[in-house]
Order: sequence, then C-alpha cells, then structure tokens
Amino acid sequence: MKCKACGGPAAINMRHHKLALCGEHYLEWVPQQVQRFIEKYQMFSPQDKLLVAVSGGKDSLSLWDVLLRLGYRADGVYIGLGIDGGVNYSDQSHEKIVQFMAKFWPQAKLHVVDVEQTYGMTIPELSLARRREAKPCSVCGLNKRHIMNRVAVEGGYTLVTGHNLDDEAAVLMQNTLRWQVGYLARQSPVLEATHPKFARKVKPLCRFYEREMAAYAIVRGIDYIYDECPHAEGATTLFYKTLLNQLETNSPGAKLSFYLEFLRARQEGLFQKAHDEVVLHECEYCGQPTSAPGLCSFCRIWDRGADAREPAGELGLPVAGG
Amino acid sequence: MKCKACGGPAAINMRHHKLALCGEHYLEWVPQQVQRFIEKYQMFSPQDKLLVAVSGGKDSLSLWDVLLRLGYRADGVYIGLGIDGGVNYSDQSHEKIVQFMAKFWPQAKLHVVDVEQTYGMTIPELSLARRREAKPCSVCGLNKRHIMNRVAVEGGYTLVTGHNLDDEAAVLMQNTLRWQVGYLARQSPVLEATHPKFARKVKPLCRFYEREMAAYAIVRGIDYIYDECPHAEGATTLFYKTLLNQLETNSPGAKLSFYLEFLRARQEGLFQKAHDEVVLHECEYCGQPTSAPGLCSFCRIWDRGADAREPAGELGLPVAGG
Repeated sequence: MKCKACGGPAAINMRHHKLALCGEHYLEWVPQQVQRFIEKYQMFSPQDKLLVAVSGGKDSLSLWDVLLRLGYRADGVYIGLGIDGGVNYSDQSHEKIVQFMAKFWPQAKLHVVDVEQTYGMTIPELSLARRREAKPCSVCGLNKRHIMNRVAVEGGYTLVTGHNLDDEAAVLMQNTLRWQVGYLARQSPVLEATHPKFARKVKPLCRFYEREMAAYAIVRGIDYIYDECPHAEGATTLFYKTLLNQLETNSPGAKLSFYLEFLRARQEGLFQKAHDEVVLHECEYCGQPTSAPGLCSFCRIWDRGADAREPAGELGLPVAGG
Repeated sequence: MKCKACGGPAAINMRHHKLALCGEHYLEWVPQQVQRFIEKYQMFSPQDKLLVAVSGGKDSLSLWDVLLRLGYRADGVYIGLGIDGGVNYSDQSHEKIVQFMAKFWPQAKLHVVDVEQTYGMTIPELSLARRREAKPCSVCGLNKRHIMNRVAVEGGYTLVTGHNLDDEAAVLMQNTLRWQVGYLARQSPVLEATHPKFARKVKPLCRFYEREMAAYAIVRGIDYIYDECPHAEGATTLFYKTLLNQLETNSPGAKLSFYLEFLRARQEGLFQKAHDEVVLHECEYCGQPTSAPGLCSFCRIWDRGADAREPAGELGLPVAGG
C-alpha cells in the first residue's frame, strides 16, 4: 500500500475513503479534514475563543493539537474527577496533558477544575454517597457536562469536545434502538446555545473513526492515556461499539454512512418537531438552564438548597501553563 | 418452569412477557394475542375478506390457521416461483400447504398462481434472463408483491402476510442504518390502500418473535418447510437478524422495544412528512400504482410494452381446495 500523495510506504489505509497515506501526509490530511468539517458545519471562526475539553485521551489531545496547528485560539479545560483505580487514573490523565503541553504547546492555557477541591468530594465518593455506586458513569457525565458548560459560559468560550465517529455512532445506535426522538433531535456536530447560560458545543472529530484519531496521536508522537476509565464508560456503550464494528467489518463505511445519513435526515427536518418542544428553566440555585423547573440535576446530586444563588465565577478558573 | 394458566409443565417461556405456558394454553394464548393486535391496529373486521399469503413456512401457515380458528373469512394465495435447488423447494412448499389444508382446513380456499405458467418463466429463469442472477431475491420480491397485490385487488381482499417481529425488526434496522425515511414512513402493521388498485396490507404477527411462531406450529402439529429458500433471502437480512439476536441476548425484549418504540414515534408523526410526499401513477401497461411514471418495475422486468393495457383478471385466479 502506497501513500496517495507521495508514493512512499503508507502508514494508514482508510478503506471508506479509498485513501492510503504515509505518516507525513496523514499529519497534513487530518487538520485539512478538521478544517473542512469546521466550515461545513459552521462550527466557529478564527475570532472565536475555543475551550477544548481535554481528558488525556487520544481524541481530546489530538483535537487540541490540530486546532492549535490550524491557528485557532484554543484553551483547554481539564476536570479532575478524583478517579483512582489501581493506577491513579485521574492523576495519570492530568500528567499526560501536562506532558503534551510541555512537548508541543508550552504557551497553551489549561483551566483545571478539581471536583474534590471545588465541591468537597471526588466523583466516586459522590456516587457512593448518593447510593449510585452501580452507575458512577451517569454521575460523572452529569458533573462533566455541568462544569464544562459553566467554565465555557464564564469565559465566553465555544466548547469543543473530542467525540469521534465511533462515539457518535454508538450514542446514535443507543438512542435509535429506543427511538428517543428528543435525544435524536439534539445529536448534532453543533449544538447551538439555546440559552445565554448554555455554551455553544461543537464536535470537530465527529466524522473521524476512532482508529484514525489513534493513528494521528501515534504518528504525531502524542503520548496519551490508553486505558478506559476503571469504572468503564458503561458496558452499554462498549456493547453498541462492538455491534457497530461488526457492521463495519461486514460493510466498510457503514458506521460513517449511518451517522451521515442520520445528519442528512435531521438536516431535512426529521426531528424538527421534537427539537422545538424543549422548554428551558433556570436552576433555582446555580442558574444553569435545565429542562425541569426547580433545581438542576447537578445541584440536586450535590444536595444544594434552593435558598441561595450560586456566586458568579464560583469555580475560580485556576489557570495552569501559559 | 410452570404454565401460568394451569401449573402444568411449561412448553414455552417468554422472558420479555414474563410468561410461561404449557402447549395447550399456548395454543389458546396465540390467537388471543393475534386478535388483540388485529383490534389494536384496526387491521380488519369479521366482515372483511382476507387473503393470506402462504409460502409453506411456519409463519404463514400458523397465521392462516389462527385466522381460521378465530372465525375470519381467510382464503390463501400461493405463488409458485419455480425455485428448484437440490430439494425442489417450490414444489415442497406447495405440498406442505396442501397437507396443512387436508389436515386442518379441508374447506379452505387456496388461490395458486404459477409464475412460469402465467408469465412464461420461473423466477430463477427470469433473474438469469435479466442478468440479475446475483440478486434473484429482489426479482422474487418484486414479483411476489405485484402478484399478491393483483390477486387481492381483483378478489376484493385485504392482504394478510406472516411477517413476524424478527422480520420487521431486521427491515427496520436495515432502513434505519441508512435513514431511508421514505421506507421508514411506510413500515407499519397496517398499510392503507392509498390507491384503488392497491390492496390494504396487514401483518397480524408483527409482534411475535420468530421462535414464538415456530413454537405455535410445532405444538399445533403443523408440518412446515424448515429450510430457507436455496437462494437465501439475502445475507443482508440474515446479518441484521444476527445483530438483533445479539442485542436481544444482551437485553431481553430489546428487539420488541426497538419495533414498538418505532411504531410509537411513527404514530406520533415522526415520518409524517416523508409519508405524505409519495405520489402514485398508474403503470401504463398493467395499471398497478407505481411511484414513477411509465411502466411499473414488474412490467419492466417482464419486458412488457407500453402499447396495450393488461386485461382485467389476467391471472385467472385458479382455485384449489374448497
């Protein structure tokens, strides 16, 4: 297999694109593609301030790298969840990010929010305290969404996440199998800010296969955290990923076309009705938008009272690097 | 495992219904459920003339049996496709139907349409002649749909087919993976006659798992044709059935809820827009409705000219039995 650009030995072959490239040209091709998707889905412009949610994994580090290479004003945010496991998962993740910055982008800015320092408990402790130890993933997701949104809104950022095609297709499969029309309506490369306290959210990697992002990180020399979270992002998502991988093996490109045809149908208004039905309220404590009146689920899980407003800038946005 | 009705040894356990039954009570339960679905989806009433498409397989023979047991006016139609294989598949299928009638319903009426006698070639010959030998299934499906519809319209019947949940879920999965919104809009337990030359089409078994219908046939003592058609209904459908079986194993009832939640979303108007967009024309040769102007695909594949109208009652409706 030869590189289509230079004829040298190919490092990666993308059957669904009928394209093989050497390492050097692959490192050029990925940012070109990302830029194409940014424009196609009107994600952001060079003037916008971007906040990349970085976990220390291949997707988020590669995404941050690509955006900085493309010249965007991209800061990072890392949320210290306090996940331990045998390997001190959260500390390791943070370390990978710090190393990445030191190696490639020493001038980049990273916001760090430590959940335990800020709110008093780690995610596993919170899960346990709320008797949700069986499902720490949902507690974790809830916290990450709330915190990322708050940091983005406070800093005037567009929030950028590293969800890849495999992630998006698995969620799509899960929502489709239950025909959760409301969720389907909101699954998009761009989630507009439907409320002043909602950040705009975009996913520039949504059309890249997981293996394509792994290849980018490896060829670029980005050292990332390989292991899944010890609490495992739910056997459910992994199960759907396995199903979709079978589909892909049976028919290369099936995963991409499942997602793209969904976007086309969505664009043509398939879920318009469900989309318009969402009504937002402001949480009585923190002020973040929520679909039900009263407290938002973040404030409910942290057991916050409804008697006081959360002070603005509560999270403090400590800045490391730069 | 004990029968919920009588406490005797259960013959079948339906985890998704939390219901186990002995043979005797299973034979009562199935028609009750069929009757429930007939009413729920407003399929037909005792006054309607029903035409059951019988292939000799477990689903169609069981369906015909159940409808007759429930007292409906149900005739059958068998289409002789001329499929040979090592076992003379079509002849064997016909024989199973004749044996079934002799054993259970000697007074029932069966319409037989032999494709070779009526149109001059068997389905495999037609596939070959049209250089579609790789895909005899699509030629076969096209012919069956056309002929069943014509017989039903000519006889003033509602057309009843034995599609079970596994069939419906596989087609649903296939159409969903490609987001073929037009097809999704038309997938329903009841397809209304949107044109005077379209028969109303209903699927009373759409909520029964394949294994439930196999169990009915076995307990009832219906001898049916076990083998898949030697041309195999496309590896594609079988592939989706395998995927869905994994899903079902992982989460019992998933297949049923995938289908039922789809019906709910459809009922709530999810595909309404796509549904309304279909425009029908009458085929210039045979007069059956078709989505494109000119000849319908049936007349095109049989190479019919556009210069003459098909005589009414062309198929002759030979009647066996009764």
